[in-house]
Amino acid sequence: MDSERLAKQMDFIVRIDELKKIVRQTALTDGSRQETVAEHSWHIAVMVLLLAEYSNDPNIDLLKVIKMLLIHDIVEIYAGDTFLYDVESRKEQNQNEEKAAKRIFGILPEDQASELQSIWDEFEERKTPESRFAKALDALQPVILGYENRGWSWKKHSIKKQQVIDHKKPVRARSVILWQYLQKLVDNAVNEVYLKE
Amino acid sequence: MDSERLAKQMDFIVRIDELKKIVRQTALTDGSRQETVAEHSWHIAVMVLLLAEYSNDPNIDLLKVIKMLLIHDIVEIYAGDTFLYDVESRKEQNQNEEKAAKRIFGILPEDQASELQSIWDEFEERKTPESRFAKALDALQPVILGYENRGWSWKKHSIKKQQVIDHKKPVRARSVILWQYLQKLVDNAVNEVYLKE
Repeated sequence: MDSERLAKQMDFIVRIDELKKIVRQTALTDGSRQETVAEHSWHIAVMVLLLAEYSNDPNIDLLKVIKMLLIHDIVEIYAGDTFLYDVESRKEQNQNEEKAAKRIFGILPEDQASELQSIWDEFEERKTPESRFAKALDALQPVILGYENRGWSWKKHSIKKQQVIDHKKPVRARSVILWQYLQKLVDNAVNEVYLKE
Repeated sequence: MDSERLAKQMDFIVRIDELKKIVRQTALTDGSRQETVAEHSWHIAVMVLLLAEYSNDPNIDLLKVIKMLLIHDIVEIYAGDTFLYDVESRKEQNQNEEKAAKRIFGILPEDQASELQSIWDEFEERKTPESRFAKALDALQPVILGYENRGWSWKKHSIKKQQVIDHKKPVRARSVILWQYLQKLVDNAVNEVYLKE
């Protein structure tokens, strides 16, 4: 038994508990509170089990997409969460997240650090069918929650329909069907006055 | 586009948001609050990415284990969470969970309902290497958190060392190395007076 290896793995497992304390700008379906990053990551990992069939690329590697979704936000332990619509902060955020990835994955034994770093890089680069579909689900989930919680976050930040449409392009790029669904959801949200025209 | 199929999938995705509201008897590493079932499910799904190498069966199907871990507690939406050490309630709970599984998975299109029900059944039956290793991680995670949060839940419920050892047999059965680790953690917890001798 390589106890140093196991100690590093357990150290990582303990550190990522932190993702249960970082809250997102998205509220639960009933608007009772904001969801945590850990909860969001679980939700989209379950979503891909059900929605993979709607990927424009029919042969995506499901295990790889799930790994991406489970770990894509782990960097927020050191870099924090930035609101999607806050364009200026997003730029700086990207650099912080790259540093944070090296720091958090670096806790692990070398082979696993390298595997997770590579999965995270692939997700960030959005060049593969898996990373693009993973991003589509990551982008779709807050819209589903936003409609259910009657625009909790959209109202709070005075978000307009066009901003949502512009920022949800990852969905349009990777799934014809989910993009149709998202557009309908956004139109309904405008009709119900959850979102500004 | 089969809009009835997609509507069922989205209905399920909205319903399971509920798992962010069901709290477990385990607190976060810093003891600041109890973790939600959604957070726990995410945590153990990441754990298997790192710890699969310690399964006594070297060739487990990682994707299947992850699916189990992501959905194993979804039934608690209808059946609630029962504390592991509450033996009487656990019996009744098993029947409730079977009904709950049919109800929640039944929201999905038939093929997906059947797939998830079958994964959940396999997890509950513990006959395959995948379900047994999934259960081992499900059982190990609260001990890791319990040690970190200085026995938050063990102290609250006056849990003794032997109770933990007895209830964590799923770890012993599926991983020599993780069982050694768990025993050391429990001994340390007793030394630190997080757990009664």
